[in-house]
Amino acid sequence: MTSGAIRSPFARWLSTTNDVTKVFLSANSVPGMINMAGGLPAPEVFPVGELADMARAAVLEHANETLGYSAVDGLPMLRDAIAARFSSTQLRLSRENVIITSAGMQALDLVGRVLLSPGEVIAVQTPTYLGAIDAWRPFLPKYRPLEFDSQPRSYASTFSGAQFVYTVPNFSNPTGKLVSIEDRRALVAAAHSTGTWLVEDDPYGTLHYDGPPLPRLIELSGAEKSQGIYDGPVVYMGTLSKEMVPGLRVGWVVAAPEMIQALTVAKQGTDMCTSGLTQRIALSAVNAGLMERKRDPMLALYRARRDALCEAMSLHLREWFEWEVPTGGMFVWAIARDRNMDTDVLMQKAMNAGVCVSPSSAFSPDGSDHSAIRINFTFNPPERLVEGVKRLATAVKSMSHR
Amino acid sequence: MTSGAIRSPFARWLSTTNDVTKVFLSANSVPGMINMAGGLPAPEVFPVGELADMARAAVLEHANETLGYSAVDGLPMLRDAIAARFSSTQLRLSRENVIITSAGMQALDLVGRVLLSPGEVIAVQTPTYLGAIDAWRPFLPKYRPLEFDSQPRSYASTFSGAQFVYTVPNFSNPTGKLVSIEDRRALVAAAHSTGTWLVEDDPYGTLHYDGPPLPRLIELSGAEKSQGIYDGPVVYMGTLSKEMVPGLRVGWVVAAPEMIQALTVAKQGTDMCTSGLTQRIALSAVNAGLMERKRDPMLALYRARRDALCEAMSLHLREWFEWEVPTGGMFVWAIARDRNMDTDVLMQKAMNAGVCVSPSSAFSPDGSDHSAIRINFTFNPPERLVEGVKRLATAVKSMSHR
Repeated sequence: MTSGAIRSPFARWLSTTNDVTKVFLSANSVPGMINMAGGLPAPEVFPVGELADMARAAVLEHANETLGYSAVDGLPMLRDAIAARFSSTQLRLSRENVIITSAGMQALDLVGRVLLSPGEVIAVQTPTYLGAIDAWRPFLPKYRPLEFDSQPRSYASTFSGAQFVYTVPNFSNPTGKLVSIEDRRALVAAAHSTGTWLVEDDPYGTLHYDGPPLPRLIELSGAEKSQGIYDGPVVYMGTLSKEMVPGLRVGWVVAAPEMIQALTVAKQGTDMCTSGLTQRIALSAVNAGLMERKRDPMLALYRARRDALCEAMSLHLREWFEWEVPTGGMFVWAIARDRNMDTDVLMQKAMNAGVCVSPSSAFSPDGSDHSAIRINFTFNPPERLVEGVKRLATAVKSMSHR
Repeated sequence: MTSGAIRSPFARWLSTTNDVTKVFLSANSVPGMINMAGGLPAPEVFPVGELADMARAAVLEHANETLGYSAVDGLPMLRDAIAARFSSTQLRLSRENVIITSAGMQALDLVGRVLLSPGEVIAVQTPTYLGAIDAWRPFLPKYRPLEFDSQPRSYASTFSGAQFVYTVPNFSNPTGKLVSIEDRRALVAAAHSTGTWLVEDDPYGTLHYDGPPLPRLIELSGAEKSQGIYDGPVVYMGTLSKEMVPGLRVGWVVAAPEMIQALTVAKQGTDMCTSGLTQRIALSAVNAGLMERKRDPMLALYRARRDALCEAMSLHLREWFEWEVPTGGMFVWAIARDRNMDTDVLMQKAMNAGVCVSPSSAFSPDGSDHSAIRINFTFNPPERLVEGVKRLATAVKSMSHR
């Protein structure tokens, strides 16, 4: 320090962060490390040529829109396109139901800003997405677990008194779980009966490998309304990050107009607006049907990678872990047969062996779950996945407590 | 609502927002309205062709970097370029001193996140930028005024006990004021003696029309350190928004490494990363010297517009307002000679007359200042500025209280 004065302290929440992400990031700079930790799409499926041409055309043909300030709530035509995409006979949506966000992470941040005061209660699907925990950390919320039993039940007591309920019903991060249609109906019923906002985070909805997806919560909620545009309690979040590319940083929230208006006020004080350039490229991609054209090859690639990972796990990890083969998404969630295994320790040993996976502590708000790991299968080709699993088995064998 | 249940309420800060920005936005959709309210650059100076080519090349030549996830703290080469740009013999900077942000607004948001807990004290240059007030609103802070008298003085009592001090020393928004070198030295001395972080927001530093700019606060602070990279109390914020184009949403913070690390944790939970595409375009522009090449024509254009506005004001508004001709930036701050004039009312009358300006209430944290207006001169060509001033004079004449 240039002076002896004590600096004003940082806010308290900063001391509550876990350092798993920092470890992940450092892993990326180690030569030869097989990264199976992050939720990364396969760069091979990026539509590079198409997006390069769309980027150039966007600037040349829409210079003021792409290079100037955008509307806080997003490019009107992109909002219309998102409203059209998610509209159905059960769900009537207009532009007023949509805000464009700087990808899915910002949607989580904005929902926290408009709904949370310090110390309030959130009910979250457990284990839950670590990015959501990060987004809401500054409010030091209290967490209430939302768990799906084998028997669907009423969730009213889970919803009651919570500021909102958070779920990733399609191929959850980290577990890959697909929430059943019965549980979906029960969640929506609880939201309607209690008035608690129900946040449906859906980055993986288009990544389904074994059959058609189930109805969205917002669609089930919309079916209860007879006329007018949607004004129910479900707050639906989507993004281009997993469906096409993360680098544009374009996502959206579909919700009641009063929620969209509140999110818009929050966004104005957060980043003013999302880049008009990346929004215009996203609109070009939507209008050109680019995601639909690329979907089948992407799904085939990811399905093959999932199968390669699960086959290698059966060969090399079955002794120590159990898992379900996910029907979509990006992850296999492997639970240690020995519930005393500490996967924080395993992560360190795995990194020493040249592979990186995510320990379960990152996915519980209080960091208390130590007996599982999340393994990504979308980023690496099959031979790397197999080699990664072998290295992971080496790390497991080296754990002293066995 | 689809059910009779009461919704969980929005956070309390949402009810504290002023609706001036909403009025501004609605103004943009009124045909023929002359918008002299926003801090908008002139679209004529956007380097459209160059940026279109850079956008295409960025995607084609750096597909993984532009379309995949970026590092939370920014593209390493762009961080290096920003460190090099602001380094001098007095100020030694490295990559560790720099985080790339989603433009200047996000820098304000992140600083609030890492330094503020609800109800804490911030000292701010008064009147102050409304975007800063918006960014910190969720923390419901207490505001302490930082005022520059004609005689420079010690600011230690203003700094003491504040979480941070906020100033726009170059051509402040809204007043256009250039903070004197004596006051700059006094601010830096107070930051060093008290340990209070000193936030130097500098979007307008390159927009100087009548002479060279004064030394930055961070440079004065760096001069007090004899070796090693900068680790002092000044948190410097910059952006491409006013210097080149707002649409890329690329800005930066230069500060002590401990502050950059804290901001990085906060950014991770806010938007994960800034678009790799817009960052790569920004890097191409920096490497190509694009801003420097475009600067002289831009300054000439803005200087002529400032002069046209001030001349028209002298002809049509002198009876009711007084102002200083700003030596840089984007705004003229006109103070009513009759301090009982309510410029919130004037704004409405002005919009009825076909011109939009910003009332001073937007620039005081408690909305209590009603006797001035901010007029932008960069966005409109001279003839529109003259017509806008005439309309404003019509509106002033129609005010009933005179």
